[in-house]
Amino acid sequence: MNIGILGYGNLGRGVELAIKANPDAKLAAVFTRRNPESVKVQTESIPVVHIDDVGNWIEKIDVMILCGGSATDLPLQTPKFAEMFNVVDSFDTHAKIPEHFAKVDAAAKNSNHVAIISVGWDPGLFSLARAYSNAILPNGKDYTFWGRGVSQGHSDAIRRIKGVKNAKQYTVPIDAALDAVRSGSNPELTTRQKHLRECYVVLEEGADAAEVERQIKTMPNYFADYDTTVNFISEEELAKNHSGLAHGGFVIRTGMTNENHKHIIEFNLKLDSNPEFTSNVLLAYARAANRLHSEGKRGCMTVLDIPPAYLSALDGATLRKSLV
Amino acid sequence: MNIGILGYGNLGRGVELAIKANPDAKLAAVFTRRNPESVKVQTESIPVVHIDDVGNWIEKIDVMILCGGSATDLPLQTPKFAEMFNVVDSFDTHAKIPEHFAKVDAAAKNSNHVAIISVGWDPGLFSLARAYSNAILPNGKDYTFWGRGVSQGHSDAIRRIKGVKNAKQYTVPIDAALDAVRSGSNPELTTRQKHLRECYVVLEEGADAAEVERQIKTMPNYFADYDTTVNFISEEELAKNHSGLAHGGFVIRTGMTNENHKHIIEFNLKLDSNPEFTSNVLLAYARAANRLHSEGKRGCMTVLDIPPAYLSALDGATLRKSLV
Repeated sequence: MNIGILGYGNLGRGVELAIKANPDAKLAAVFTRRNPESVKVQTESIPVVHIDDVGNWIEKIDVMILCGGSATDLPLQTPKFAEMFNVVDSFDTHAKIPEHFAKVDAAAKNSNHVAIISVGWDPGLFSLARAYSNAILPNGKDYTFWGRGVSQGHSDAIRRIKGVKNAKQYTVPIDAALDAVRSGSNPELTTRQKHLRECYVVLEEGADAAEVERQIKTMPNYFADYDTTVNFISEEELAKNHSGLAHGGFVIRTGMTNENHKHIIEFNLKLDSNPEFTSNVLLAYARAANRLHSEGKRGCMTVLDIPPAYLSALDGATLRKSLV
Repeated sequence: MNIGILGYGNLGRGVELAIKANPDAKLAAVFTRRNPESVKVQTESIPVVHIDDVGNWIEKIDVMILCGGSATDLPLQTPKFAEMFNVVDSFDTHAKIPEHFAKVDAAAKNSNHVAIISVGWDPGLFSLARAYSNAILPNGKDYTFWGRGVSQGHSDAIRRIKGVKNAKQYTVPIDAALDAVRSGSNPELTTRQKHLRECYVVLEEGADAAEVERQIKTMPNYFADYDTTVNFISEEELAKNHSGLAHGGFVIRTGMTNENHKHIIEFNLKLDSNPEFTSNVLLAYARAANRLHSEGKRGCMTVLDIPPAYLSALDGATLRKSLV
């Protein structure tokens, strides 16, 4: 299958790596809003094309992987490019998934394409874990923990405070809460009991550290409901110790099948690179999009609509023999 | 959907419990090879029917859940009853899944039914974990650990030794091996390094304990490659302390996306009742079988062929809103 990458940041570079690891996938071109001359890709002799010229590639690309951000790029890009290509995106604004789905579904059906949205690990693999475990244990309780890893949204929120030059925020799951969940005791956990927020902040010259710390710790939704620590560090230290992209998390469902029998289903991830892992999930679902399209399926889907076998390059008989 | 239960042992009783927990499912009848008068079910006014009369129920049952054993029952029953009903089974002899699939597929296609085989947790949810994680991390290594839980096959093997009156064998994953895998070090683990085998044996009067222990510990395939402990206990103690049905296990895949970035995907289960949990998985896939049949799908499938959304009683829009 011929893959296009639209948007060449961390995610786009990750998809490029993923394509190298999957012999049935071939990178056709990288599309960018920047000056294509200024974009250096990792794969030799791959064209870098300006996004305005994407229309010339309609016959040459089986699936376009959209590597833009969820805040402003994907809400416009996914419906737009679903008119031209089979597409896969990693739209991750949970509350807006129904609205995004509706727009992309209309575009994909209108133009006879397949679109798979909200692919990654949360939403994505964590959605799968929640869906399977809810179907199997209807009488139970879900817990999702994230981290330890940088939250882009919370880091951005800190950077918007006056006097802040740069910042990184780690979401950290609290071990005691995880242990309580894994014990099967079905605890009621407050926001504060589940996660810590660890902030590393570089101040502008002359900024009031105490005031910045106060503003962070009292920020509604983002920090006020959490135990938050604020560490002021230099730009050099931030670059040296806090530019990693590691992340991970846990989805746990506990449930009963009768009054005495408790069951615990846990799915967890420990990732050295959040974007590279997400890229691999995107590529597996690009394979599914391509197959579903060739079978005549049309419209928008999420990971919940895709048979797991469609993610694999192996055929059904091989999968049954080796993995079932 | 109207469910039939064929075979009324631990699994059949578990399916009956699962039906009570799922309002969209209704138990139509229980089918047995025994004298129906001798079978007491847990649900009031549910008919218990002799298996020879199953033909009278073809119009009244949407999905028949086959609750027999994999050794001798299911290889015959699943192809046979797939001629009459949509069926779901928990066939778990991994090496014979391709052969079982072929027979069931022919029967189901011939009679326009859907059959889903090898449903449970291994095969079943563990197969899903392996398939998803292999598709996402093509350069990696799989590890499956089972337990702590009773292995029926190993307990049976001990019971066949002369001088043994009764026995239970626990498969126990070794923590050091699990820790090594979770560290991402990609260890090469021998059979002996992964699991212990813990045996509780009741001797016949006058049996030679040392000889029984020797025969267990040297039994090829079952015990010779493992560190095995043998404990001789009384029938009363076996009944009191070793009649639980708890089980569980771990599927872990570790893989790299470039030379420096390691990723660990883990799925684990901790189950108070192996048959009750398996029953809940069976019921979720019965729901999928019913839907797939009503959409015109035919033939045999495994868990890898089923979109996760089909397991849920919730519709797509609700799932997208609440679980993606």
